Amino acid sequence: MIGIFDSGVGGMTVASTVEQICPQIPLLYFGDVAHTPYGSKSAETILGYARCNIDFLLEQGAKVIIIACNSAAATSIQTLRAEYSVPIIDVITATVSKATEGTKKNRNRRIGIIGTRATIQSGSYEEQIKQRCPACHVYGQECPLLVPLIEEGWLNHRETKMVVRRYLTPLRQHQIDTLILGCTHYPLLTHLIQKRIGRQVQLVDSSIEAAQCLKSFLDNSPEIISNTREKKKNSQPHHLEKNRFFVSDVTPSLQKLANKIFGRNINLIKTDA
Amino acid sequence: MIGIFDSGVGGMTVASTVEQICPQIPLLYFGDVAHTPYGSKSAETILGYARCNIDFLLEQGAKVIIIACNSAAATSIQTLRAEYSVPIIDVITATVSKATEGTKKNRNRRIGIIGTRATIQSGSYEEQIKQRCPACHVYGQECPLLVPLIEEGWLNHRETKMVVRRYLTPLRQHQIDTLILGCTHYPLLTHLIQKRIGRQVQLVDSSIEAAQCLKSFLDNSPEIISNTREKKKNSQPHHLEKNRFFVSDVTPSLQKLANKIFGRNINLIKTDA
Repeated sequence: MIGIFDSGVGGMTVASTVEQICPQIPLLYFGDVAHTPYGSKSAETILGYARCNIDFLLEQGAKVIIIACNSAAATSIQTLRAEYSVPIIDVITATVSKATEGTKKNRNRRIGIIGTRATIQSGSYEEQIKQRCPACHVYGQECPLLVPLIEEGWLNHRETKMVVRRYLTPLRQHQIDTLILGCTHYPLLTHLIQKRIGRQVQLVDSSIEAAQCLKSFLDNSPEIISNTREKKKNSQPHHLEKNRFFVSDVTPSLQKLANKIFGRNINLIKTDA
Repeated sequence: MIGIFDSGVGGMTVASTVEQICPQIPLLYFGDVAHTPYGSKSAETILGYARCNIDFLLEQGAKVIIIACNSAAATSIQTLRAEYSVPIIDVITATVSKATEGTKKNRNRRIGIIGTRATIQSGSYEEQIKQRCPACHVYGQECPLLVPLIEEGWLNHRETKMVVRRYLTPLRQHQIDTLILGCTHYPLLTHLIQKRIGRQVQLVDSSIEAAQCLKSFLDNSPEIISNTREKKKNSQPHHLEKNRFFVSDVTPSLQKLANKIFGRNINLIKTDA
């Protein structure tokens, strides 16, 4: 069983991609909506929330954890890996691998990253890119207003286009060839971001990379796969409807966004966690 | 000792006004920054946070509580007053009194309210206005993006002006004569709001009204005033520097905003609450 957590809505884009790539694996999702957003909070506070989320998913039976929240991965991944014995897949490691391969093959090795304040200030992406590709130039840009605009559903409003323009202008000036969408909300703005940054720039979507990384992990972890296969032989095959979605708070607008992201009615289960 | 709480920064505008109006009264502030914002969360979750905040302030010695957060007051005030024996002053009751007096005296009895989603959807302002002035027409407008824009310090950005315009246009069409700033962040945008809604519209600032309401309460509560006077005789007079500011999370941008609101260096004390 795969456990995925995020501070809220963003991780649902990861969960939705995981469903598509690994439909045979049962999925547990936890969205820490009561504490959202993480990206404007301190590293210490985010680490505390991440621990609670992982504990909850383990209690529910998760055998692999995906941190679908860039802010949590950027600030806390090293500490969490030291504290937990369960495999933890994070969006950042997966995304960096894709971005550095792309820029090395074809281009100018100038990589831009957009993310929350917590993600950019952690320096996590920059550090990991430099380890894999010391010749790369890395340009981080905090975009704190994109998450609220996306959560409002303002995906094509003029104000959103102006905010995107303001945030991306410095990255255009640096002539990046690759742009990391370092927040799992941002895929919902791909159309505006690609248009503003230029068609020649390759966008790397951390949601897709995290799901791909999970797939590789499962392909190389015969024990988890074989457990799943055995169960499938002995019982009913897994249906997407059996995946469970927990949240620490529910509002009507969250429910609407969840249904939109998954393309079906999602039963959000409210927890006290 | 006065205890003030808010979900974050907004309540500091109330605390700052209280310091100016009642400089002789010691003040305890609690900003629940780890859970901010409240305005996009469910009534049930906000009530849970409000209880924790009041418990914390009572433990620290508060004798009167001010709920400086419109979202918490709008969703939870009746339950909280039933649960606690300490006097609780809330921004809404104070603000409604000022708004209805103003519109009855001079004008057309059309009152607009801007606030967070939780505040507007609670219907609390509307209900209280109707009780005091059944002939009033009330128009509520959710403005969920104003808090993030203000917390970013985008007080004069073109995007902020456009968002303000979008939110206020329906209220202009209703030809309101009074506009309640139903969120303690909004006084930081008074310049844009007044310009957009029209000079003839009276703005009612919930921060100022809450502080004024506290002053009236203290003037009519001789036991609290006399306790304070007695202590003043026996010990040093109260200095603003003795006021204490607790927060459940600290970031550099929060510290900067706090110093700006109070016009001096504020020592933010991080709690686990």
